[in-house]
Amino acid sequence: MTDMHHVYMQQALDLAAQGQFSVGTNPMVGCVIVRDGDIVGRGWHERPGEPHAEVHALREAGAAAAGATVYVTLEPCSHFGRTPPCADALIKAQVARVVIAMQDPNPLVAGAGISRLLEAGIAVEVGVLAAPAESLNRGFISRMRRRRPWLRVKLAATLDGRTALANGVSQWITGPAARRDVHRWRAQSGAILSTARTVLADNAKLTARHEMAEQQPLRVIIDSRQQLTPAHPFFLETAPVLLVYAGTREDADDLHQWPDHVERCWLPALNGRVDLNALLEELAVRGINNVWTECGPELAGALLAVGLVDELVIYMAPKLFGSSGRSLLQLPAFEQIEQVPELIIKDLRLVGEDIRVTAIPQVVIGETQS
Amino acid sequence: MTDMHHVYMQQALDLAAQGQFSVGTNPMVGCVIVRDGDIVGRGWHERPGEPHAEVHALREAGAAAAGATVYVTLEPCSHFGRTPPCADALIKAQVARVVIAMQDPNPLVAGAGISRLLEAGIAVEVGVLAAPAESLNRGFISRMRRRRPWLRVKLAATLDGRTALANGVSQWITGPAARRDVHRWRAQSGAILSTARTVLADNAKLTARHEMAEQQPLRVIIDSRQQLTPAHPFFLETAPVLLVYAGTREDADDLHQWPDHVERCWLPALNGRVDLNALLEELAVRGINNVWTECGPELAGALLAVGLVDELVIYMAPKLFGSSGRSLLQLPAFEQIEQVPELIIKDLRLVGEDIRVTAIPQVVIGETQS
Repeated sequence: MTDMHHVYMQQALDLAAQGQFSVGTNPMVGCVIVRDGDIVGRGWHERPGEPHAEVHALREAGAAAAGATVYVTLEPCSHFGRTPPCADALIKAQVARVVIAMQDPNPLVAGAGISRLLEAGIAVEVGVLAAPAESLNRGFISRMRRRRPWLRVKLAATLDGRTALANGVSQWITGPAARRDVHRWRAQSGAILSTARTVLADNAKLTARHEMAEQQPLRVIIDSRQQLTPAHPFFLETAPVLLVYAGTREDADDLHQWPDHVERCWLPALNGRVDLNALLEELAVRGINNVWTECGPELAGALLAVGLVDELVIYMAPKLFGSSGRSLLQLPAFEQIEQVPELIIKDLRLVGEDIRVTAIPQVVIGETQS
Repeated sequence: MTDMHHVYMQQALDLAAQGQFSVGTNPMVGCVIVRDGDIVGRGWHERPGEPHAEVHALREAGAAAAGATVYVTLEPCSHFGRTPPCADALIKAQVARVVIAMQDPNPLVAGAGISRLLEAGIAVEVGVLAAPAESLNRGFISRMRRRRPWLRVKLAATLDGRTALANGVSQWITGPAARRDVHRWRAQSGAILSTARTVLADNAKLTARHEMAEQQPLRVIIDSRQQLTPAHPFFLETAPVLLVYAGTREDADDLHQWPDHVERCWLPALNGRVDLNALLEELAVRGINNVWTECGPELAGALLAVGLVDELVIYMAPKLFGSSGRSLLQLPAFEQIEQVPELIIKDLRLVGEDIRVTAIPQVVIGETQS
């Protein structure tokens, strides 16, 4: 039975993953309904405000749901949000059993859906393929449990760790396959984090140009020195922008007229810069589950130094710029190897002609900001 | 028939590869003798002065060799070296047919063994699995055709391309599996190339400490400034050393008494340094097929700049040293991306917790030395 549990739950996970470009602030959820060994219903959550996975699967199953086993990748909800509670729908459909990969990650509501099902006399099993289910909704879970999004930092360099020639020339370090891969990551993220310096230096649009992109991520630009003005071509793109300043609104130069898709936000300062912990809290409040960071060596180093980087995605082009090239990462000058940030390599592959390394920082280094 | 040709030749190649730690100046060669669909003889060349692969295989086959088909990874020799010509042995054994992966790479003798077989009425087929056969003896072929060894440069850095902290601390960047891998490469190489600076800075022994090591590679140390003296612990190891100086013997300080395992050699100077082309020619003359280079960023950069690097083997530790760390490679300050050395990634894998990239430089950059 456990084997079949895994087979059906894996199918539910695969269905859930179909929402990766569209669920936005919601978790991805998949659902499979099995009656007498046959799958009679399938569903996945597509986008906020639309029916949950269980509702789609129940619709397909119809009367066959009565007495069936339901596999769902996340604990069914028990509250009225934009849609009625799924636990109630399952009870109404008279399913016999519900197999759940993981509890609701929100500590305040975890277990409530399960209790509701149990009270209605439905058998419940929890924890089938829990690890892949957690990994699927890493961002959502991070926001619920840690009150901050899952933060990925993209880095791109040559094999000898350089981002540009000494004179600053840097365009097209990596090849088309890697650039396409970056747009896919952007499309899967609720926000792209960068700095005014990167926008000004690279003339980056920071939009998701990928055929799977359902919605444009929020472009979060740290502009502590208020260098960007509405006249910059960056704002011609109508993808939403959050300009982040350090300090209070009173310090701001409010002479400019900003377009509607640009919002400005003042956050606590720390050493004259935006407090990065406060920034991530702010993004979590705004429902951002996944942040994709594309920035220069200073912000990347600062995020690492305060332990806010959950994943590094490093593209390495098969080129050598030599010691005069510009550096990938600005970090404190360490005195001992023990002070150095260590990573665990999670994935290593070729993307086109470039190398892509996905790595998880292991140690929080330096002083934390807060 | 072609399929069976490939099957038997692959077996001969696998046999040949058993000589990788012992053939020294000779090529690796494997041989399989097939009679009526059965393998009746197998052989591989183990070390210089010992019988060639064909002789081992003929001995095992005995009378069954008459009328058989012989698969051999390299054209049988036709001259008396340390052993009598293999072509003659095959003729004497009255084999019916000889299938050869590739001709002798020495342009002066290529085809002579084949002619001898054909003249004796033996059918000959050449070119079966030629590409893997070439790749097996890359070093020997390079020495025969280009009059220089196949040169590999080992580099080791952090993921951000740094070899040491700003203060020079660098020991144990990579893990035990990568270090073991390096010793395996050393054991497969006829010479290890390095500099006095590296010997002095790292206190490196540059010996092959691996259970497969049959013989110690020649430790070739460039010491243009004559910094090393016989008192240095490097010379306590009795693995042979070739100390290379720029200029002529007359310039040398000959006060020192050098141990027997240390030979000194004066080569033409170029801009006050050893002419690297002359050095590789010298090593080829000494029968070195494969050179494994472990050095600092200056020599690695210089070898790259004159186009003498055939393969880069780059180990990357999952650590970040930041921009104050020391650089991997010293190269000219390029003005345009087009001037930058490009590589093709040949192999990418994890070795323990470290990444290993094998890459082939594509473009000769800068000015050539000669």
